[in-house]
Amino acid sequence: MTDTAWLGTVCPRPSETHRIAAEARQNTLTKPPGSLGALERIAIQLAALQETERPSADNVQIILFAGDHGVTAQGISAFPSTVTVEMLRNFASGGAAISVLARKLNARLEVIDAGTLATSKIAGVVTDKPCHGTRDFATVPAMTDEQFAFALNAGRRAVERAQDRGTDLLIFGEMGIGNTTSAAAVAAALLGKASADLVGAGTGLDNDGIRHKARVIDTALDLHSLKGAGVPAAEVLSKVGGLEIAALAGAIVAAAQARIPVLVDGFIVSAAALAATHLNPSCADWLIYSHRSSEQGHRLILEALGAEPLLDLKMRLGEGSGAAVALSVVRLACALHSEMATFAEAQVSESL
Amino acid sequence: MTDTAWLGTVCPRPSETHRIAAEARQNTLTKPPGSLGALERIAIQLAALQETERPSADNVQIILFAGDHGVTAQGISAFPSTVTVEMLRNFASGGAAISVLARKLNARLEVIDAGTLATSKIAGVVTDKPCHGTRDFATVPAMTDEQFAFALNAGRRAVERAQDRGTDLLIFGEMGIGNTTSAAAVAAALLGKASADLVGAGTGLDNDGIRHKARVIDTALDLHSLKGAGVPAAEVLSKVGGLEIAALAGAIVAAAQARIPVLVDGFIVSAAALAATHLNPSCADWLIYSHRSSEQGHRLILEALGAEPLLDLKMRLGEGSGAAVALSVVRLACALHSEMATFAEAQVSESL
Repeated sequence: MTDTAWLGTVCPRPSETHRIAAEARQNTLTKPPGSLGALERIAIQLAALQETERPSADNVQIILFAGDHGVTAQGISAFPSTVTVEMLRNFASGGAAISVLARKLNARLEVIDAGTLATSKIAGVVTDKPCHGTRDFATVPAMTDEQFAFALNAGRRAVERAQDRGTDLLIFGEMGIGNTTSAAAVAAALLGKASADLVGAGTGLDNDGIRHKARVIDTALDLHSLKGAGVPAAEVLSKVGGLEIAALAGAIVAAAQARIPVLVDGFIVSAAALAATHLNPSCADWLIYSHRSSEQGHRLILEALGAEPLLDLKMRLGEGSGAAVALSVVRLACALHSEMATFAEAQVSESL
Repeated sequence: MTDTAWLGTVCPRPSETHRIAAEARQNTLTKPPGSLGALERIAIQLAALQETERPSADNVQIILFAGDHGVTAQGISAFPSTVTVEMLRNFASGGAAISVLARKLNARLEVIDAGTLATSKIAGVVTDKPCHGTRDFATVPAMTDEQFAFALNAGRRAVERAQDRGTDLLIFGEMGIGNTTSAAAVAAALLGKASADLVGAGTGLDNDGIRHKARVIDTALDLHSLKGAGVPAAEVLSKVGGLEIAALAGAIVAAAQARIPVLVDGFIVSAAALAATHLNPSCADWLIYSHRSSEQGHRLILEALGAEPLLDLKMRLGEGSGAAVALSVVRLACALHSEMATFAEAQVSESL
């Protein structure tokens, strides 16, 4: 079986020295203290994580994991499974939202087939998958232990490639018809909440569809005995997760272990982040929350993670698109922190 | 007396044809309909304003109006009046927040001394002022009718310069120690609300300072008979406004008349926008709201304007900084609208 012992390695701590220095610098800049709000908080957090006086988010990589979901057999998505692979081609050819955003933001985009139904390699896409989609978790476990371990390691391998390119901030995205169902199941199990509280419209279900989706999850959580308190995250991910969600969880832990901050996207990536903090609680310090999704279950996941996302733009697309939009704000926060004049430098009087 | 008859000229209407076409295009792009949330709304609004299929915010000018306030004699600010002119130098030399943002965003920054206490021209700053600061509105009207008319026209002149440069979006900013007091007075009078509901910490008052500031405003609104319903905005602006606030109001009306959308900043600029919509209601269509300031009175002004700002980052700096940060998001909204592939182009299946 593929080794997953690395998952437990404790992640480095943010630098308290650099956090204090960054806070002090913010209070010398030519503005009323605190007046840049969340931009100050983000710059200070990044300074502590990057162990620097001048944080930056110039060399950014977006890694998008795609997977297919057997549970689509239960009619829980507004789009057919074929769309996952069709969208992989769209990512690679530059027409998808995340493709446009990566181009505009001058960020690298790596698209990984982490377990789609595609039977051959797609040009411009990295193939790193143990099988072609998960099984239908309404009837059987979504994946075997071997498939789960493979997916976790696919996440780690992607982070290692990003690290070799000197990445100073990572964005993870995802694609997979059916994956809001899988993510809601994972989050409901880990949070001990009712399925109905975590389920939303996904790509566009109506109210009947949403109720059906919640029932499918609820039945599956019973079937796999995932409703008790303290079920291990590995158990939850392998029983009702997705290959791309497992890869995301592995990638998040690996990024934190490698000292690379992660700008966390919306519902799916946050569910994976929740799972990652169960697998290895020390990764939590490395997560910066980008946006509040309009997928309704996101609120509960963010609360559990103690997250204060930067943006609330009513986005619910996935792909890493919310994090990519937030990247533009993070970069401005870094520029302000690093380039503004101090009161002394600009010879401006301080407060009375 | 300087002519202000132009103020009443009706602004053009947004193009309904282009709005409908932009909405239709959003629904053909490779994403679930509506999943880009506020980014879709902004792209559609800009398409209607710019009368184009592909809106853009590439050629942006930031115009910052600065003025000083006689009411600082009442001890209503945490910073001394000297800071206004000191900050003008900081804007011009590139060390202020808005300077850094303009540089990063590749936007032109024009800084205008619209009425500061500066007794000579400052390098890199346009001087266009009728006098050196307003008088103390706690005891006398802030400005004469002539000074008020001059300030309105200074706003219009700035927009004309921007128009000559082919500007496709305008951001207005401001600087002026004491100007949250003036803006709160203007908004309280126009909204018929209690001063206490509009007053906040400004650059950093404590609770006693905030109560004192509200009392100063309340007394002034009585003194100038500005508490009744339906007091004309011109009366309000000249009695308790600031020269930079009057210039902002004039600039907002002039921009709308010239078909240039305005990305509205925080508390002060929104108060000026409120006044502008009283002076000429038809300018309202041209306003895009960038962010929710943490200055507490902003909420009431935004409600009155029916505004849904893009961002809520707890910023309260002024200078146009909140709008500048939002510009990065507006640009991504335009890029997504213009560059994403349609379902047909990308050969992606539509929903079931």
